[in-house]
Amino acid sequence: MAKMIRKNYLMAPGPTPVPTDILLEGAKDTIHHRTPQYLEIQKKAIDGCQYLFQTKQPVYILSSSGSGAMEAAVANLINPGDKAISVNSGKFGERWGDLCRAFEADLDEIKLEWGSMVKPEQIKEALEKNPDTKAVFTTLSETSTGTIHPIKEIAEIVKDYEAILVVDAISGLLAQPLKMDEWGIDVVVTGVQKGFMMPPGIGLISASEKAMKVINENKNNKYYFDLKAYAKKYPDSPWTPPINLVYQLAKSVELLQEETIEGLWERHELMAKATRKAMEAMGLELFAENPGNVLTSIKVPEVVDGKKIVSFLRDNWGVTFAGGQEHLKGKIIRIAHLGYMSQFDVIIGISALEMGLKKFGYDLELGSGVKAAEEVFIKAGV
Amino acid sequence: MAKMIRKNYLMAPGPTPVPTDILLEGAKDTIHHRTPQYLEIQKKAIDGCQYLFQTKQPVYILSSSGSGAMEAAVANLINPGDKAISVNSGKFGERWGDLCRAFEADLDEIKLEWGSMVKPEQIKEALEKNPDTKAVFTTLSETSTGTIHPIKEIAEIVKDYEAILVVDAISGLLAQPLKMDEWGIDVVVTGVQKGFMMPPGIGLISASEKAMKVINENKNNKYYFDLKAYAKKYPDSPWTPPINLVYQLAKSVELLQEETIEGLWERHELMAKATRKAMEAMGLELFAENPGNVLTSIKVPEVVDGKKIVSFLRDNWGVTFAGGQEHLKGKIIRIAHLGYMSQFDVIIGISALEMGLKKFGYDLELGSGVKAAEEVFIKAGV
Repeated sequence: MAKMIRKNYLMAPGPTPVPTDILLEGAKDTIHHRTPQYLEIQKKAIDGCQYLFQTKQPVYILSSSGSGAMEAAVANLINPGDKAISVNSGKFGERWGDLCRAFEADLDEIKLEWGSMVKPEQIKEALEKNPDTKAVFTTLSETSTGTIHPIKEIAEIVKDYEAILVVDAISGLLAQPLKMDEWGIDVVVTGVQKGFMMPPGIGLISASEKAMKVINENKNNKYYFDLKAYAKKYPDSPWTPPINLVYQLAKSVELLQEETIEGLWERHELMAKATRKAMEAMGLELFAENPGNVLTSIKVPEVVDGKKIVSFLRDNWGVTFAGGQEHLKGKIIRIAHLGYMSQFDVIIGISALEMGLKKFGYDLELGSGVKAAEEVFIKAGV
Repeated sequence: MAKMIRKNYLMAPGPTPVPTDILLEGAKDTIHHRTPQYLEIQKKAIDGCQYLFQTKQPVYILSSSGSGAMEAAVANLINPGDKAISVNSGKFGERWGDLCRAFEADLDEIKLEWGSMVKPEQIKEALEKNPDTKAVFTTLSETSTGTIHPIKEIAEIVKDYEAILVVDAISGLLAQPLKMDEWGIDVVVTGVQKGFMMPPGIGLISASEKAMKVINENKNNKYYFDLKAYAKKYPDSPWTPPINLVYQLAKSVELLQEETIEGLWERHELMAKATRKAMEAMGLELFAENPGNVLTSIKVPEVVDGKKIVSFLRDNWGVTFAGGQEHLKGKIIRIAHLGYMSQFDVIIGISALEMGLKKFGYDLELGSGVKAAEEVFIKAGV
């Protein structure tokens, strides 16, 4: 068996590949965070985040993963006994439920089959049932399935109620359109190891004025994630910020701003389209009801062992796709096209899948997926 | 026109991609070179080079490009008026001629059409004509065309004469089999920005005992490249060595030794085979008479502007192939599969060429090249 040299291709929906220019920022001298020099870097990072969130509101930098930012949203909005609505159509929608229960919300969880999309009417019904709901917790891109939820339409509905609309945009932001202020989203949370092309370690959260009123009145037990502390110190940090990660964030937003938010959406849309066309050409079935720009999930063909092929591609060819989570283990493969990726990353992913599926006994025409993707790129005039 | 994020793919026959593990070695503290600590690193680099040259002779580290190592060979072997033979079937064979003339050799230059391979009998004839020839200058892989010369067979011939056999293995070493001691090659020169997966800046040269006798008697004017000075200080350096590049070289040989020399040859052979099969499937004609493992050169189809397509791929898609040199400008494209590359780099190169040729008016079936390459990789059990 001939051996190739090992290269690593991160094609899971986070962490995503990190450009050397961003990696090297993390290798710069750590300076003290209570200095004007540091604050200037943090301000640059925040300015960029505001643009990328499409908001004029403050964006708070948390030394945490995206889940920390999710906890911050719940802990700052929900008092024990408060009514909340959450959408659960996958692992990360489920996490909103877990968080709400941990903080003793009176929760109305809209449970859907994993992979399906919530209908805006379902949110409306839930709000009609409980007009005094404190917050609605939703997900832009459900990372466990690849489904995109109709956030813009949901925001249209929620704005007529007192409820605060919270969006987990952890994997979705930058890949999938989201305009926080224009759409009227109250709270957006994200993490940087996805579209921001960074190593993990920073959670980001922004809150509308409507949300800040609720946050200021909230009595829940909390300290580290208390957004009032962040607001008081803003644009500085209440606790020690992850200094070298903030250097990287400042570099990341510089690169992302150069590309423009519309350019980011367009690039991700095109990579997603090329991937979907390739999957269809390879005779594969898409899993998500409303697949988006973050990742493409496919049903593993019956003849193929879905767990083994994912391990094989990672351990032997260095290509890291994500398999399914929970009851979807072995049933789906998730191919990310997120962050620091171009047309050739898409081609690598497709070619790896073509060769991998063939090896695992699935009958397909080699090159057919790549051909379909190339046609999409050529047609788009890349 | 949709825009992708910029990534760079070095697919020219040098410089080649550098792994981060090697790049980071260059960022370590520069220590003094006249210390036991430094010497230990240099020794490790040299040990590895001896294995990779397949020789027990010293390998000298020059602070120079590969051309510097070529000059060292000529300057140390040729006195003015000495007879020499060189093979010129491309830009780098021509360079041997230029160097021999610069050092006033009495030169018999075997001029062949660019792209063709020298026949061992042609070397024999030239030696029979001038049995007192001091040195024969040859090229393992003629980088300007992709042709491999039959060095093993040439060595069989030259060893019956007094002449010193010199091989430019700058692009060929590690990709193409070469066994210095076993084959009886007297002088091997190379540079590190090819198979060694390093940034440029180090030339390497090794000489047999037979060659060292000639070198020790040589009276030519020289100083910087005087190999007697290197031999005297060995394994230390006579002048300041490129310290941080030597750190990188020590790391490079570590990685290459792990892969083993046979593994390196096999990997390059397979990448070359996959590329050639892809080119054939795309209806393209190979240029070199005896194409090897370093690069694949193809004739540019008549409908395509050979200069424009190379610039376009580099400037727009970040894919750097090499065009033709001198009279081959615009006529050929050279696709390297050299150094830090795997099956997916080959796929990227082919896909870029498929899309590029289509864009420039050449009629081909998209995906056909990728399919052919995938078949080669699958068959080889990668």
